[in-house]
Amino acid sequence: MEIINVKTGRRKEFVEITSQIEDIVRKSNVKNGICFLYVPHTTCGLTINENADPSVKKDIIDKLDELVPEDGNYSHMEGNADAHIKSSIVGHSLYVFIENGRLKLGTWQGIFLCEFDGPRIRNVWIKILKTE
Amino acid sequence: MEIINVKTGRRKEFVEITSQIEDIVRKSNVKNGICFLYVPHTTCGLTINENADPSVKKDIIDKLDELVPEDGNYSHMEGNADAHIKSSIVGHSLYVFIENGRLKLGTWQGIFLCEFDGPRIRNVWIKILKTE
Amino acid sequence: MEIINVKTGRRKEFVEITSQIEDIVRKSNVKNGICFLYVPHTTCGLTINENADPSVKKDIIDKLDELVPEDGNYSHMEGNADAHIKSSIVGHSLYVFIENGRLKLGTWQGIFLCEFDGPRIRNVWIKILKTE
Repeated sequence: MEIINVKTGRRKEFVEITSQIEDIVRKSNVKNGICFLYVPHTTCGLTINENADPSVKKDIIDKLDELVPEDGNYSHMEGNADAHIKSSIVGHSLYVFIENGRLKLGTWQGIFLCEFDGPRIRNVWIKILKTE
Repeated sequence: MEIINVKTGRRKEFVEITSQIEDIVRKSNVKNGICFLYVPHTTCGLTINENADPSVKKDIIDKLDELVPEDGNYSHMEGNADAHIKSSIVGHSLYVFIENGRLKLGTWQGIFLCEFDGPRIRNVWIKILKTE
Repeated sequence: MEIINVKTGRRKEFVEITSQIEDIVRKSNVKNGICFLYVPHTTCGLTINENADPSVKKDIIDKLDELVPEDGNYSHMEGNADAHIKSSIVGHSLYVFIENGRLKLGTWQGIFLCEFDGPRIRNVWIKILKTE
């Protein structure tokens, strides 16, 4: 299992981690397989979305905030109930295929760590399976 | 890696792809394993849900539209910010187990490509791993 | 493939299944790998979230209920359209890494079956892949 650290700078922020994951795939020497990612946290998530126009990240963060605001009628008293809810909506894991030794992403796709309760240092765990 | 094309006919539409995935599983001759699906797009997704009553698809589309309307106060200026947000809510990948050479779905389950910014021709990428 | 049964006691309820999954991992004797979970239903889901303070579960259930209420203007006439929608938001599957023969979860993470249309007896299907 490989681990990368991701430093987030705001309470809510999507940080692109595509190049760090590509480095790990390259070092693995796996030509064809699947790269599985996982965050061991309960107030952040992982998603794939457009990495060309940064306004896409902003729109996702803003809409999730509108649907699940930080200040709400929550039972969990640590002030981050919204972050727990958002992480279950977005999900804690995702996988990307590996072909010819490289991550096989769509043209506009990037991999993002979704911080919902930062700033913090987050971990992303990575496992790679060969498919042949 | 296998690829299927899915033609969508409306801006928002869930297209069932179960039988196309079953064909690929059959041709793979894998008896027991996991079938991993992935869409290389940022404005569509994949989900599993009921394939008996088509009104279930309609309800999911309509509710997502109510929560994330096409016309909103978005920063992304291409007119499809809602589609990017919906794709991160639903997710870009899913897997189904393979048992005895067939997809192992629940009684009422079908696999759907979730179009949020059609009509288009979409790709679904498929990789199969043997588990024994 | 392994199967566990989960009895739910209310219409909406998150039931922690971490220890049952850990038992299956232990019996598999797999030292390093990935444990894949799947629910063969269309009105429940699977998620990972905090297992320390039970109010987190309550907040997720309550927020999903606010966004997708049981009584709404739905087409599906079985009275559980909200449950179908919630299951596509949360997702029907998730995986957790295995290291040193044990589930590798974050400090505060537990695995939950998300019941949206109970009470019922639900199944969770499990497959384990070795990574070395």
